[in-house]
Amino acid sequence: MKKLIKGLREFKASYFSTHQELFEQLSHGQKPRVLFITCSDSRVDPNLITQAQLGELFVIRNAGNIIPPFGATNGGEGATIEYAVQALDIQQIIICGHSHCGAMKGLMKLNSLREEMPLVHDWLKYAEATRRLVLDHYSQYQGEELLEIMIAENVLTQIENLRTYPVIHSKLYQGQLSIYAWIYHIETGEVLAYDPQKHAYVLPQSQLPETETDEKLLHQFPA
Amino acid sequence: MKKLIKGLREFKASYFSTHQELFEQLSHGQKPRVLFITCSDSRVDPNLITQAQLGELFVIRNAGNIIPPFGATNGGEGATIEYAVQALDIQQIIICGHSHCGAMKGLMKLNSLREEMPLVHDWLKYAEATRRLVLDHYSQYQGEELLEIMIAENVLTQIENLRTYPVIHSKLYQGQLSIYAWIYHIETGEVLAYDPQKHAYVLPQSQLPETETDEKLLHQFPA
Amino acid sequence: MKKLIKGLREFKASYFSTHQELFEQLSHGQKPRVLFITCSDSRVDPNLITQAQLGELFVIRNAGNIIPPFGATNGGEGATIEYAVQALDIQQIIICGHSHCGAMKGLMKLNSLREEMPLVHDWLKYAEATRRLVLDHYSQYQGEELLEIMIAENVLTQIENLRTYPVIHSKLYQGQLSIYAWIYHIETGEVLAYDPQKHAYVLPQSQLPETETDEKLLHQFPA
Amino acid sequence: MKKLIKGLREFKASYFSTHQELFEQLSHGQKPRVLFITCSDSRVDPNLITQAQLGELFVIRNAGNIIPPFGATNGGEGATIEYAVQALDIQQIIICGHSHCGAMKGLMKLNSLREEMPLVHDWLKYAEATRRLVLDHYSQYQGEELLEIMIAENVLTQIENLRTYPVIHSKLYQGQLSIYAWIYHIETGEVLAYDPQKHAYVLPQSQLPETETDEKLLHQFPA
Amino acid sequence: MKKLIKGLREFKASYFSTHQELFEQLSHGQKPRVLFITCSDSRVDPNLITQAQLGELFVIRNAGNIIPPFGATNGGEGATIEYAVQALDIQQIIICGHSHCGAMKGLMKLNSLREEMPLVHDWLKYAEATRRLVLDHYSQYQGEELLEIMIAENVLTQIENLRTYPVIHSKLYQGQLSIYAWIYHIETGEVLAYDPQKHAYVLPQSQLPETETDEKLLHQFPA
Amino acid sequence: MKKLIKGLREFKASYFSTHQELFEQLSHGQKPRVLFITCSDSRVDPNLITQAQLGELFVIRNAGNIIPPFGATNGGEGATIEYAVQALDIQQIIICGHSHCGAMKGLMKLNSLREEMPLVHDWLKYAEATRRLVLDHYSQYQGEELLEIMIAENVLTQIENLRTYPVIHSKLYQGQLSIYAWIYHIETGEVLAYDPQKHAYVLPQSQLPETETDEKLLHQFPA
Ligand SMILES: [Zn+2]
Ligand SMILES: [Zn+2]
Ligand SMILES: [Zn+2]
Ligand SMILES: [Zn+2]
Ligand SMILES: [Zn+2]
Ligand SMILES: [Zn+2]
Repeated sequence: MKKLIKGLREFKASYFSTHQELFEQLSHGQKPRVLFITCSDSRVDPNLITQAQLGELFVIRNAGNIIPPFGATNGGEGATIEYAVQALDIQQIIICGHSHCGAMKGLMKLNSLREEMPLVHDWLKYAEATRRLVLDHYSQYQGEELLEIMIAENVLTQIENLRTYPVIHSKLYQGQLSIYAWIYHIETGEVLAYDPQKHAYVLPQSQLPETETDEKLLHQFPA
Repeated sequence: MKKLIKGLREFKASYFSTHQELFEQLSHGQKPRVLFITCSDSRVDPNLITQAQLGELFVIRNAGNIIPPFGATNGGEGATIEYAVQALDIQQIIICGHSHCGAMKGLMKLNSLREEMPLVHDWLKYAEATRRLVLDHYSQYQGEELLEIMIAENVLTQIENLRTYPVIHSKLYQGQLSIYAWIYHIETGEVLAYDPQKHAYVLPQSQLPETETDEKLLHQFPA
Repeated sequence: MKKLIKGLREFKASYFSTHQELFEQLSHGQKPRVLFITCSDSRVDPNLITQAQLGELFVIRNAGNIIPPFGATNGGEGATIEYAVQALDIQQIIICGHSHCGAMKGLMKLNSLREEMPLVHDWLKYAEATRRLVLDHYSQYQGEELLEIMIAENVLTQIENLRTYPVIHSKLYQGQLSIYAWIYHIETGEVLAYDPQKHAYVLPQSQLPETETDEKLLHQFPA
Repeated sequence: MKKLIKGLREFKASYFSTHQELFEQLSHGQKPRVLFITCSDSRVDPNLITQAQLGELFVIRNAGNIIPPFGATNGGEGATIEYAVQALDIQQIIICGHSHCGAMKGLMKLNSLREEMPLVHDWLKYAEATRRLVLDHYSQYQGEELLEIMIAENVLTQIENLRTYPVIHSKLYQGQLSIYAWIYHIETGEVLAYDPQKHAYVLPQSQLPETETDEKLLHQFPA
Repeated sequence: MKKLIKGLREFKASYFSTHQELFEQLSHGQKPRVLFITCSDSRVDPNLITQAQLGELFVIRNAGNIIPPFGATNGGEGATIEYAVQALDIQQIIICGHSHCGAMKGLMKLNSLREEMPLVHDWLKYAEATRRLVLDHYSQYQGEELLEIMIAENVLTQIENLRTYPVIHSKLYQGQLSIYAWIYHIETGEVLAYDPQKHAYVLPQSQLPETETDEKLLHQFPA
Repeated sequence: MKKLIKGLREFKASYFSTHQELFEQLSHGQKPRVLFITCSDSRVDPNLITQAQLGELFVIRNAGNIIPPFGATNGGEGATIEYAVQALDIQQIIICGHSHCGAMKGLMKLNSLREEMPLVHDWLKYAEATRRLVLDHYSQYQGEELLEIMIAENVLTQIENLRTYPVIHSKLYQGQLSIYAWIYHIETGEVLAYDPQKHAYVLPQSQLPETETDEKLLHQFPA
């Protein structure tokens, strides 16, 4: 704790004092361009890995970067999505999973969680579509490999769930919103993005269009 | 989007390549010391303001840094808290509100949200204790002043809610867990922490004990 | 009532006695090929309009042919879908809306239902994505025209919802399931089917492939 | 699928073209006299077995012809009942179970469904009163016999549930609504109706009054 | 508070010391014969008005003596009923409303409660069948008279709700359970009991059979 | 039953006729000073043990004197609390557990209840914080001793839950409400009250202040 409190002082003395104009400006309102949904995992820092400036990313974080379908919970996920898309007019959403995700490990041994961590168990219901898909189609895999598949598929599951929200459904209808699926790999520092044409996660850099119109070409949902 | 993708590349080329050992180590597991609960607001960056290193903060972010009472939702908040305290054995929780919070502004005009942003409206039910307290005891205030009171009181409301979770209740019982209430002020870059003895938010630095035993003296709940 | 009881007698004397072999066979088990989801409206008779034989259609009927997203209700829709796809191994799902739908009329004047028919009001929450889309993008229409758009869009909304069910998600993954959007027009006796390529409802007959491989070409989701 | 599409064409060419006046009339509104609640089972066709005309039966179909008590779910059953009784002023409700019902077979082995078909498992909670009654009072039966008892009792359970809906409760109060319990036997083509005086399912034909006043004498609830 | 604490002392000094044997016996277990469900109102004291001895009445008290239908809430009512009937084998249930009931007054002006007392508003949903019946059939009454009708009808509504609980449904099936509807009149000290044959509340004394077999004849449900 | 009906007659003949003025007065409205929350157990009679007069105690009774956190159920507990504190302006709340509590015995063998008494099982979720605390910190105890600890801790758990209600949160804020934790011991007729300073249950009599200002000194929450 003491370390964090020292950190607060350092932050004010260094970063804050050299960016005072930015903070002054931000105090009048935020205008983030991206809703970034990721895991609570301490090894994932959205601003660090994207080198985004303060004020650019509106962030939802929970165990497993899970978005329950519309109406399925009255937790914070739906409200925060609604606020992002409707009040802030955000037009890009990134759901970012990550390697070695503890929530996805939990999904692999779901039944053992019922007694031990009942809230986690119940929460993983909204990743059940992931678990089911993996059980049905990847039974030949196990261990780390299976975990990687689960992590990758789960981001796609959550995008399906996201599409059921009225504000999302309406904005997608006329191309006013783009949704991206990312996986962050802790050990390589790399992010791969889902390419719906290839049905695969690829380096997003390789896909950067020559010209400015990146939004059109880059891993959008719907394809 | 293009900017973020460039950011990913920069991150890998700069930060990642100069901290490869840290990433290697983190890929074997996380061991965060603090659960940091804050708003989704793009102007709040937990790692930046605390100057915490990657791997130190387990983070929950939603609109309004709200934690519904145990059993009240099946959203991600409860599961993530359970995972943090039980699976990761985290012993310090910070709930950090912030100035100019859009969710708290919404709480001040709750009825107008019912039609316009129904999910936000319903979500603010879990800040209703804040709203009620402020309506009952601060009716003489308005505008910015009222908003500041709401922001400050809401963090305390959420701490009450947090205390109803079984894992929290049990850990608090024998002092194995400390909970801190913080407010981050965007315009000054300062964080104030709630001091239960003074019933006021104060600069945490001023309270740092001379010796190392900070946890004992610093704004803990229960007092 | 008397009329229905006479009908029972007639059924037994006529249809049943001329199809005894079929009934004998059906009494050993059902093997329907299609899950047909439609409105409770008395003017819609799935078996009549498709001329399907007894035993061919597994049927869900409720007001508005609505399928709440996975986890959003604990009503009969989800369980019946799960039973159809998993226990009966059904591989084709039709969601069939219809012209002059009373539930969709209700959706056009949602607020007036809150007092008068609270359960209908709450149920239409699962068509909110339809309402939102239409409000956002078709505000220039009204009356019958608006109703037709709502009916057509709502079937597509419900298909989005359907995709969040674990069994559906998994079966879609490897093309083991096809989902079709239909609108039945009472006044013409015609059914139009949604063609994802054309983003339009068209006569399904016109699309019938020359050869047998109809499933591959015909309005499937995902495209 | 191809078969169904051909069926659509046949329907239009034959039934529709010979009943154009009926369809024209129906396009102006429905006026069904009966709410018919039955199972999704493909072997049950309400219009066929009652020989009812298009426009006569408003139909709810789900797995097990189950109606959760008022307030217990926010699925389609309650809303559809409310619409039927209040908006359409329907005054007769038939709940029709059937022999060989898969949902009732599921109820006999409830625990095995928890893992395999969790949504079906949870849905059968609203038939728990049936299961309990049968376990308590018919433990000497098994197999087909037990299944028949379960099917018969479950229709009565669902009628109890139905009575808790405000619109039903109010209409029943002054005899403005009648509720009938039916069982359809696939192998004989026969429907039996519950006779509250005899506490038994009997042939409804045998009870048809000599004169027109059938509604008064025929298996109504309350007795 | 002081008064109550003195009361505790008096209780121990007087009642307890003269009934020590009873308390000794009760400390080994309870064997109540009746589940008594009544309002939280401070003017209703079940043990006083029935002159029942300690250990005779198992008591549920909430605002309005309301029992939500099975599955409709996860509050204490259902669990306490289940415990009473199954664990304690109680075979008689009394639901006792009372004159001047504040909850029923609330039901008469339901909409005004939505803002002011939202939890009371939502709770009265389970008396909506009462409100509906009274609105539909007693619109000519008002004030005290209307309140009396509401109080009387509400007890009957709650009995309908009670019948949907599996343990109740099963016990009623073979006459192992009796349910009674009572209204306690504060101003006269009288209790009236519902007589299903007369469709009226009457003095229960007048109905006491000459011989011992009271349970059979006295206002039981089902009739 | 006959006994209770005789009791009604006796009550009217004796207590009522000697307190007619009180009943006349009560018929004009209640003004209780205390909300008394206790178990449904037949051996607990709030008015008897406190020797309170009719009209003094507003009473909630359910299995285990459990108060789910705000928002966690839509049962009667929350509504009744809201009515007590807001409509009746009650400023003192007592939660009173008792020795030999069957609900707390159930909590000690929770898993065995899942099948046998599912509603009780689910209800005890709101005492899970008690169970967790006891499992974590009192594993060396068992049998009667463990039960006593559970009973004592559970009252404190329920006070935590109580504090999450908006009306409670607001009233506590400026000392307009006091909450007391009591345990009633059937075998001794004694009530012990929790003393937050001593972290122990003590005889409330011993703490009675010399002067009248009892409310200030006596076991209030917050301390
Ligand atoms: Zn993770
Ligand atoms: Zn904020
Ligand atoms: Zn319709
Ligand atoms: Zn069936
Ligand atoms: Zn009352
Ligand atoms: Zn107890």
